[in-house]
Amino acid sequence: VTSLPPALVELIAALRRLPSVGPRSAERLALHLVQTDQVHVRALADALLRASTEVRLCERCGALTQQQPCALCTDPRRDHSILCVVERPVDILSIEKSGGYRGGYHVLGGRISPTNGVGPEDLRVAELEQRLVGGAVSEVVVALPTDVEGDATAFYLAKRLGARGVKLTRLAHGLPAGSSLDFADDLTLSRAIEGRRPLS
Amino acid sequence: VTSLPPALVELIAALRRLPSVGPRSAERLALHLVQTDQVHVRALADALLRASTEVRLCERCGALTQQQPCALCTDPRRDHSILCVVERPVDILSIEKSGGYRGGYHVLGGRISPTNGVGPEDLRVAELEQRLVGGAVSEVVVALPTDVEGDATAFYLAKRLGARGVKLTRLAHGLPAGSSLDFADDLTLSRAIEGRRPLS
Repeated sequence: VTSLPPALVELIAALRRLPSVGPRSAERLALHLVQTDQVHVRALADALLRASTEVRLCERCGALTQQQPCALCTDPRRDHSILCVVERPVDILSIEKSGGYRGGYHVLGGRISPTNGVGPEDLRVAELEQRLVGGAVSEVVVALPTDVEGDATAFYLAKRLGARGVKLTRLAHGLPAGSSLDFADDLTLSRAIEGRRPLS
Repeated sequence: VTSLPPALVELIAALRRLPSVGPRSAERLALHLVQTDQVHVRALADALLRASTEVRLCERCGALTQQQPCALCTDPRRDHSILCVVERPVDILSIEKSGGYRGGYHVLGGRISPTNGVGPEDLRVAELEQRLVGGAVSEVVVALPTDVEGDATAFYLAKRLGARGVKLTRLAHGLPAGSSLDFADDLTLSRAIEGRRPLS
């Protein structure tokens, strides 16, 4: 639209590139930002640049960090004999929030997907294997999504790491907490039946 | 969450201050941004700073602009004998998109609201009055929202500008294009009946 100043048009275009920001949201955000106190806009720009330049992947586990190795890898209160394998750094956040895990992590950086040309060599599998050398790790918990690619990746890891003498486990599947049977899809329900446990 | 690097925590906090960005969206955006090519993040930060420092309100009409007066005020193809009064700069965008208007604008910067302590002196009413001096403007179209405050502001403008010999009009109210009667609320429907027009 010709009635907008060029700097505003550019800002809208830059915001549009963010995930799940549509044309309307980008416009609304941009109009809000140019009418916001410059101090706040500068703080946002600084936070963007700082996070972008200082946050890196941990060379050991692949988590997001500003130090090498990351705080998770060096935390003495965590049990580093168990590693949880996740797809993306954001998955660590979900597991940490649950409060149910106090071991180490390993971020693969993706899933094996022949159709997208992603093979094991594109993921941090060799790094994972390296971490098992020496025998300090006794269990690897695979926490990948339960779709075709997640299953294929889990299967590949089981085959490749099986010879290392490490225990390989997978997150349990079943009904979500608080859900009733009518809302469970067929696959979830069949997995819940398959994985049934004795009533204590 | 302790597992996040401080620069990422700060970025999430900065993004949270944006309108309609909840805690989840802020987290997702921040995690996306730190894993995005630095060139793109720098471009976004630059666009933010540039828009924030260079975009100002037009001293004449109150629209967002990088030049004084703005492109709308100086466009020779527009009819400057008619002024459309809107609440916020963003409203100009909506009217321009409709394609149904080719006159000038005047942004009030708010609505009269005694409960929020907003009086006429807090709005750009004196600036509007000033623009009517000399008689170059023959019509003022009030395009404010149709709620109590919008109506009060329109009524105030009618009273104050009435003596200036300028024609005061208001946007028509009625059924939205393409809507059926069942979906129209009572007020919209009663206004549509009130404002009925002869079939040509």
